[in-house]
Amino acid sequence: MDLNIALSQINVIVGDLPGNTRKIMDTMAAAERKGADIVLFPELTLCAYPPQDLLLDKLFLTRCREALQRVAAACGESITLLGTVHEEAGKIYNAIAVLQRGKILAIVGKTNLPTYDVFDELRYFTPAAAPQPVEVDLHGKSLRLGIEICEDLWDERYDNKVTDLLAKQGADIILNASASPFSNGKFRERRERVQAKIRKTGLPFVYVNLVGGQDELIFDGNSFAMDADGRIAALAAAFREDLVFCRFRDGMRTETLLEPAADINAELRAALTLGIRDYFKKSGFKDALIGMSGGIDSALVAVLAVEALGAEHVYGYALPSKFSSTHSLKDAEECSRNLGMHYEVLPISDIYEQFLDTLKKPFAGSAFGLAEENLQARIRGTLLMSIANKKHALLLTTGNKTELALGYCTLYGDMCGALAPISDLNKPEVYRLARYLNERYAYSVIPENSILKQPSAELAENQFDPFDYDITGPLVDDILYNRKEIDTLIRESADAELVYRIYDLIRINEYKRRQAAPGLKCTAKAFGPGRKMPLVNHFKLH
Amino acid sequence: MDLNIALSQINVIVGDLPGNTRKIMDTMAAAERKGADIVLFPELTLCAYPPQDLLLDKLFLTRCREALQRVAAACGESITLLGTVHEEAGKIYNAIAVLQRGKILAIVGKTNLPTYDVFDELRYFTPAAAPQPVEVDLHGKSLRLGIEICEDLWDERYDNKVTDLLAKQGADIILNASASPFSNGKFRERRERVQAKIRKTGLPFVYVNLVGGQDELIFDGNSFAMDADGRIAALAAAFREDLVFCRFRDGMRTETLLEPAADINAELRAALTLGIRDYFKKSGFKDALIGMSGGIDSALVAVLAVEALGAEHVYGYALPSKFSSTHSLKDAEECSRNLGMHYEVLPISDIYEQFLDTLKKPFAGSAFGLAEENLQARIRGTLLMSIANKKHALLLTTGNKTELALGYCTLYGDMCGALAPISDLNKPEVYRLARYLNERYAYSVIPENSILKQPSAELAENQFDPFDYDITGPLVDDILYNRKEIDTLIRESADAELVYRIYDLIRINEYKRRQAAPGLKCTAKAFGPGRKMPLVNHFKLH
Repeated sequence: MDLNIALSQINVIVGDLPGNTRKIMDTMAAAERKGADIVLFPELTLCAYPPQDLLLDKLFLTRCREALQRVAAACGESITLLGTVHEEAGKIYNAIAVLQRGKILAIVGKTNLPTYDVFDELRYFTPAAAPQPVEVDLHGKSLRLGIEICEDLWDERYDNKVTDLLAKQGADIILNASASPFSNGKFRERRERVQAKIRKTGLPFVYVNLVGGQDELIFDGNSFAMDADGRIAALAAAFREDLVFCRFRDGMRTETLLEPAADINAELRAALTLGIRDYFKKSGFKDALIGMSGGIDSALVAVLAVEALGAEHVYGYALPSKFSSTHSLKDAEECSRNLGMHYEVLPISDIYEQFLDTLKKPFAGSAFGLAEENLQARIRGTLLMSIANKKHALLLTTGNKTELALGYCTLYGDMCGALAPISDLNKPEVYRLARYLNERYAYSVIPENSILKQPSAELAENQFDPFDYDITGPLVDDILYNRKEIDTLIRESADAELVYRIYDLIRINEYKRRQAAPGLKCTAKAFGPGRKMPLVNHFKLH
Repeated sequence: MDLNIALSQINVIVGDLPGNTRKIMDTMAAAERKGADIVLFPELTLCAYPPQDLLLDKLFLTRCREALQRVAAACGESITLLGTVHEEAGKIYNAIAVLQRGKILAIVGKTNLPTYDVFDELRYFTPAAAPQPVEVDLHGKSLRLGIEICEDLWDERYDNKVTDLLAKQGADIILNASASPFSNGKFRERRERVQAKIRKTGLPFVYVNLVGGQDELIFDGNSFAMDADGRIAALAAAFREDLVFCRFRDGMRTETLLEPAADINAELRAALTLGIRDYFKKSGFKDALIGMSGGIDSALVAVLAVEALGAEHVYGYALPSKFSSTHSLKDAEECSRNLGMHYEVLPISDIYEQFLDTLKKPFAGSAFGLAEENLQARIRGTLLMSIANKKHALLLTTGNKTELALGYCTLYGDMCGALAPISDLNKPEVYRLARYLNERYAYSVIPENSILKQPSAELAENQFDPFDYDITGPLVDDILYNRKEIDTLIRESADAELVYRIYDLIRINEYKRRQAAPGLKCTAKAFGPGRKMPLVNHFKLH
């Protein structure tokens, strides 16, 4: 049978039922005009993913039901598959509504509910029984749609192998509606997973993913369809909205499309700019502030912010103290000028001296130390927040994952900010992405000196970061994400003391991360809602 | 049969396997010395509750297994029921180990796994099949123990009614090991629930609860036993460790003990002081800092901190600006003097003026407004954090639940702090507890003027809080916790505009709460980990 499927990869906003409904109806109409037989939307498109505790609000569920009715009423001959919340007998399902000719033909619930990392679905949803294919009528011919939702495809840890069950029960095609966040390499995993399912079932497979930023999460789109031979039949854009069509002909065979070569730095650049742009747009802000230290982290964030928001919307501030080196100011200015963003210098020395004067009594008799170092960072945070309040702008915090892991950052100081764009990149990844961007710009938009100099917080005389980031960056990841056994870590690093020290620094700095800004997630394990660690925690290695 | 059961209500520390093991073995030995036939510990006592993502760490699971072996090896004739993590065939269970004569006789898993509010158990654990009673030998006689864990008792939302099933299968007694956090009225709910089960099963029931603070949670102890007639046979202390014995004789009948009359203010006082004390002790801190504004919130926190830590460990700072009234300083000092805590005044005007001077250019042409108000709060936060760093002390933040809901607080300003002791009390509850404390102290330890005066942040001329807290306090709770329908709220308040405004303020201030200090939970719905709301959220009432 000839079949034309529209992969409706749209960017919706959590809770925005009127806006999302409009966008869905516009997309549906456009797809139908272009001859779509089936219009497939991502998981929970109607309310956007993840709605979290909005699902506990009865009014929210009522409004979702009403919105679904409105979309259904607008449906024509095409079959629309729309991700939505479904309430039945006091239980809530993560579901796909099958719509045609003004009616809801069927509701298919999600069977496998992820409850790990950032996913909390068993907090809200009841697992649906393993689904049956939905038989639909298309131009007088019958078709059995194997409809599944996101995790139903990733079935290793579940009893119900949904894709296989749908095939066994006679599905003609598998249609997967996903809300799968970007992480390093996820794109390829999805392709391989779908190809494996095609080899097993012999069925063509259409995978539609959400696109857009939502708090920490970045949905990358990258929707695709494969024919029964596992060849790519349609390919949607990465990191932006798209409406592509997949035309299965002659027993569902098709031409092979070329897969774009995925480059991790190109992906990160696109992911992080989308994450920044959407957080600002969806929160109603246009302007970003960045404290420009002359170091690599703030320089990288500045490039990403300018790409996301436009140079005229990015304000850089250098906030030198008596410990700041001349190259710091020079590098901060050079980077800002390269980008064409706003740039200003506000020295903090007078404020710092005034603080020390006020603190004379409580500080009496003590030597310069952590309190004085943090004070400088907090003065900077306060200056930046004051300007952000005045300008109705959002402050971006520039810490990376390695610093955040080790607690090498000041709470209410450099940790101030509405969003942390690179908090899921370790320090070596920060360098790698900076070098990549300089290559793309064909000149050093990030000053070479920021890349080459020894990292320093410049909060005391002759201070340099007390870590070899080439070692600690990967070591932190091995502990947090790869979860390597301690014996392995010690063997590989040949430095037991270092492993103990890093493990302990991660543990005792949990309290800082509890109050950290939301950070864009771009690996399989980020700090933030996907990692729930106790603050009081006495689990020590030795 | 005669039966002597030790209710081992102990305070353990998350992850502290060596320390917890020692305490468990000491308690076990003491109970056995006093003739206990059965020694019942709370849920997950060995690693303490909740271990959260420590459960994803293989080393942690290994160490738990080793610790259990050590406890088992020390077991004598008494049966010990110890809450621990159990790993089997790659799955993890929240379990009770049944120990006797150096051996693990049985492992009973938790069947009903709470995954709502602060509970995430399906993130980690596999639900155990509905349990069988465990048959044990006590002095040559056989006894069938109906062992269950916490939520197994609260079975409305689950298919498996564990208590009923255990009774049906011939259990002689029900033993429930819990880690049930304190909230308003929870104590009475537990008694009523157990009595209902006794009426249904005709079995005596022993309920042992954890005690102690863990991050936001306060476990209140309040363990108890009831005989087959629902009369109280043993009663452990509230909010502190206890080892009490329940002696069932003559067909398991017993003398009735008198239940202490629970007073909500007395409970709150005990709960919050325990929460503060344990957070400090378990984090390795002794001293607390409080910004004393002269208002009721900081005064209440000061009383609780002094009760928790001792007056010599509490440092109050008044940080007046040009907008501070004379009564503020007077009230702050009076309260501090009443409590015998340290007290100092550090005016912020010079620092404030210096900030405005540095900010001259970015602030040029703008009127005094939110930025200048927040600046004062942030200067205070920075001063207090500087002193906290210098003194190796923790700052307590003094915001209440109503302010936090409405966003009437400054991020990185008055929201700075390691712990928020009263962030789960609404403003009327703050007044009620303050009045209660003044009655108990038999004089106004909290100055009457702090109670009587109109609340003000004093960040601008003639500024008073723009809320009638007698109305907004309960209204916020009705939205957050009682989840009343909007129509009901509007009908009850007769002020639709107010309902819309409050609802919207709660929504748009989520970003502040994401970076808020951990707050002691004392109601059924607190801000913090038990409430997961999106930051970008366009769900509006109208």
